[in-house]
Amino acid sequence: MKYSTIGIIVKTETSVTDIVERLCDFLAARQCSVLLDDSATDIVSCSQVPVVSRDELGDRADLAIVIGGDGSFLNAARSLADRHIPLIGINVGRLGFLVDISPEDIETCLDQILNGNAVSDQRFLLQAQVTRGDEVIYNGEALNDVVLHIRDVARMIEFETLINGRYVYHQRADGLVICTPTGSTAYALSSGGPLLDTDLEAIALVPICPHTLTNRPIVVDSDSVIEIIVCEPKNVIAQITCDGQMEFEVDAGDRIRVTRKQNTITILHPPGHDHYEILRAKLHWSEHP
Amino acid sequence: MKYSTIGIIVKTETSVTDIVERLCDFLAARQCSVLLDDSATDIVSCSQVPVVSRDELGDRADLAIVIGGDGSFLNAARSLADRHIPLIGINVGRLGFLVDISPEDIETCLDQILNGNAVSDQRFLLQAQVTRGDEVIYNGEALNDVVLHIRDVARMIEFETLINGRYVYHQRADGLVICTPTGSTAYALSSGGPLLDTDLEAIALVPICPHTLTNRPIVVDSDSVIEIIVCEPKNVIAQITCDGQMEFEVDAGDRIRVTRKQNTITILHPPGHDHYEILRAKLHWSEHP
Amino acid sequence: MKYSTIGIIVKTETSVTDIVERLCDFLAARQCSVLLDDSATDIVSCSQVPVVSRDELGDRADLAIVIGGDGSFLNAARSLADRHIPLIGINVGRLGFLVDISPEDIETCLDQILNGNAVSDQRFLLQAQVTRGDEVIYNGEALNDVVLHIRDVARMIEFETLINGRYVYHQRADGLVICTPTGSTAYALSSGGPLLDTDLEAIALVPICPHTLTNRPIVVDSDSVIEIIVCEPKNVIAQITCDGQMEFEVDAGDRIRVTRKQNTITILHPPGHDHYEILRAKLHWSEHP
Amino acid sequence: MKYSTIGIIVKTETSVTDIVERLCDFLAARQCSVLLDDSATDIVSCSQVPVVSRDELGDRADLAIVIGGDGSFLNAARSLADRHIPLIGINVGRLGFLVDISPEDIETCLDQILNGNAVSDQRFLLQAQVTRGDEVIYNGEALNDVVLHIRDVARMIEFETLINGRYVYHQRADGLVICTPTGSTAYALSSGGPLLDTDLEAIALVPICPHTLTNRPIVVDSDSVIEIIVCEPKNVIAQITCDGQMEFEVDAGDRIRVTRKQNTITILHPPGHDHYEILRAKLHWSEHP
Repeated sequence: MKYSTIGIIVKTETSVTDIVERLCDFLAARQCSVLLDDSATDIVSCSQVPVVSRDELGDRADLAIVIGGDGSFLNAARSLADRHIPLIGINVGRLGFLVDISPEDIETCLDQILNGNAVSDQRFLLQAQVTRGDEVIYNGEALNDVVLHIRDVARMIEFETLINGRYVYHQRADGLVICTPTGSTAYALSSGGPLLDTDLEAIALVPICPHTLTNRPIVVDSDSVIEIIVCEPKNVIAQITCDGQMEFEVDAGDRIRVTRKQNTITILHPPGHDHYEILRAKLHWSEHP
Repeated sequence: MKYSTIGIIVKTETSVTDIVERLCDFLAARQCSVLLDDSATDIVSCSQVPVVSRDELGDRADLAIVIGGDGSFLNAARSLADRHIPLIGINVGRLGFLVDISPEDIETCLDQILNGNAVSDQRFLLQAQVTRGDEVIYNGEALNDVVLHIRDVARMIEFETLINGRYVYHQRADGLVICTPTGSTAYALSSGGPLLDTDLEAIALVPICPHTLTNRPIVVDSDSVIEIIVCEPKNVIAQITCDGQMEFEVDAGDRIRVTRKQNTITILHPPGHDHYEILRAKLHWSEHP
Repeated sequence: MKYSTIGIIVKTETSVTDIVERLCDFLAARQCSVLLDDSATDIVSCSQVPVVSRDELGDRADLAIVIGGDGSFLNAARSLADRHIPLIGINVGRLGFLVDISPEDIETCLDQILNGNAVSDQRFLLQAQVTRGDEVIYNGEALNDVVLHIRDVARMIEFETLINGRYVYHQRADGLVICTPTGSTAYALSSGGPLLDTDLEAIALVPICPHTLTNRPIVVDSDSVIEIIVCEPKNVIAQITCDGQMEFEVDAGDRIRVTRKQNTITILHPPGHDHYEILRAKLHWSEHP
Repeated sequence: MKYSTIGIIVKTETSVTDIVERLCDFLAARQCSVLLDDSATDIVSCSQVPVVSRDELGDRADLAIVIGGDGSFLNAARSLADRHIPLIGINVGRLGFLVDISPEDIETCLDQILNGNAVSDQRFLLQAQVTRGDEVIYNGEALNDVVLHIRDVARMIEFETLINGRYVYHQRADGLVICTPTGSTAYALSSGGPLLDTDLEAIALVPICPHTLTNRPIVVDSDSVIEIIVCEPKNVIAQITCDGQMEFEVDAGDRIRVTRKQNTITILHPPGHDHYEILRAKLHWSEHP
């Protein structure tokens, strides 16, 4: 696959003008057109590159490069999930699970990727829908996780979980993380969840501080329909978040339905990419002795 | 010790008029004066018993009986901790760790306790103080726990912990539970903390969903000074709660100091009281085979 | 499907002659031939039923009924995994995950199952192969789990794990549980592993008391090739067990290869069977309030 | 306190002759007599220093320096616990919790310690006694932990625990770790136990892979009497180990009694010693950002 128009999405608090300029120079030298996402205009000044909206970027680009942290990548991935264009992540600051190319390696890695030597990595997203009575009151998407969580530590919530229509349990807890393999290294891990191999077609349900200690994480097939019904007490204060970035308040009686999104996203990694190597670095796993 | 004036504190959502009446009759037959805490006036009608404020109850009673759940007992214990009067707990609904006398056993158990056959159980409380700059902006007390917690799942907080002035760690987490032995069976347990024997003079620090998986619970001597400094990012939304009942919003830079309160409370249990028996029942531990 | 010849496998320490007789009478009334596995001859006396070896039972029966506990079922399942005959489990003593029909329900449940109203439940097994140098020194199969474990608590072992040829980590631990969804409710759960939905095509790797606290459980696709290399120190004392029933001593340098077995087994449950209901009962999960 | 005779105990697999010689030179320059423990004769050749047995070292030395790892220190501490002589630990290889002086700092640190600027650190030990019928069949001591453990992963053991004569629970598990604060960073931590502050007078009971998931770690006062009764099935294969160094086989019916040893040991650290600093280094806790 040849990539002719490449969108650049920058989201970071530190200045990355020099990185963007190097990237633009590199891409220009390869005869690629470049578009800059307009969310970056305050941190990047690159006069020669057209600045476009995310929508236009999605329409025109056939590859997107995200500069920032894993959070920036999550945001970009959700917004481009229906566009069928692959993503590449360049980290600013420190190595991420998704932004795995370090600034100093930009030219080497992109050279390999654009020459067709990329490791192609499919990841699925989750869709969350909240229903109140008969009305759908929220729709959201997540690459990492959909989280139900209390808003006040003094008010533990109660909820029921159904998997494919089958009742699983009634639970009192601070909340529940429903995560993809991509999200299994994020909040779900802090909550006691397992690591899911990135190509496993599975979703994990990880209770947060459950009152019943035996309410252990459950891993289900990614085609499962997961339903959470928020129970009494009335006037519960709880929220749903997608990737920890979009929030929505839910109330007792609300029904949250989480399913796999049909379209996946593709992440392009440089050759030799190894997810376990990142895990070892981030989790301080012992190397060969 | 002879008890001549007995205060009754009722806090429950179900009607307990008959229990209170039985209790009053029983105490009258033993020539005890009875005072009814005024928080109960809407759920109890007991015309012959004087209704008093909590303060007056604390001044005049030499024993207090709490009818409700463990939450009701926590509230009563905090309010009477400086009064040096022992407490007895009668559960409504289901057995509690603190309200361990079931309604059907009131007469039998109180008979034994008032005859001097009580198991006396000392429990210590925690004091929490929040300082902003040079100013003390909050003081609270807790029998179970002092909890620092996020108010928004999308915004993990960062904080530093010092024990007796020594720096322990910088932590990213949903919060931290600082609990007494009494509180070690409550929220701290859901967060992964150990059970502390009720007569152990120790405090546990239990991180809630820590980002660093090795941030395990730490148990320190109850005379320790525990300090938590809430860090950046600014505009953090976090709260401090005492026993999950009193809340206070904290901000980046605030310093939370938790120490043991000097005065303890005394719980009187009927003879044969066994904390492990309650643990076995509540945690579904296996009995003798 | 019509079942004409039914094998009965009994493994239990209590007498179950009456259960076997009821079962034989019931099957005879339905014109089924019955064969009794010869492992049961000391606990069952059923003169009118032919006693056969497990092999012959596997050759001649088109359905097998196991009477005992989950352990008995594991044993029977492994021995019949290549015979393509479904299994039914009747518990003696207490409800199991696999032996889910209680003695008092034998007639009702079997009636439904033999009438074609069974819930058919496919479960996969694991194959374990140990290689020393170039030589295969052990082959085993497991429905629950393949476990690498120390034989002496004073000698933690070290091992390396590879998934599909990729190096994962070097680990010091008491051992490693490699389990199927079926085994995720057994030893893996005690070791901190997640629950895997019974129809999830996945394998969990659950470290036992790992020295590195971040060595969390990993869940991989069931088609993965898992390799464990036992490391120095020499003269390590470790063992491999399959379903906790077959043991084999391994040494430093040995290579353990675990893969999914191609043939699955079929468990027939009565209609209405609900795996989550068994989980709720066994793990004391809260029911509807 | 002036130290005139100093014992050196060396236990390590790498050659440390140069370290020992530097140490002897340093001590000679300070007019201290030096004794070398005879366990080191094969790894150290130091002709000018008298070689003595551990017993004689205990009789004559008024300070002991241990060169090796934490395991070497545990061994030395147990053997000298009744001698009332303080210990200093020098690590070979990597920093330990107990051997906290690195070889390059020997002169600086010992100078400070011998000049009276040591941080004095009291640690208590455990005593384990196994009784079969009326007969005491084993006595052991431990600075880290007393561990009951299966010898065969296929045979989970059952045992009952009593604390101060009160029945706690009947448990099925791989074993139980009973640890001091010193041992709370060792095997108990891998088994899911909390960190106990080094000066906390407490003992933790940490179940190893318990069958009942709610069998959480329990922390009790260090004056508690802990009793474990190994239950049926008969012919159980289990062992008791002290500090993972001394082993003893136990059988069904055996009664293990663990109490605090009266004599404590004193570890001398250089000024500025900080246990939390070692924890941060070893557990990869985040530092100040």
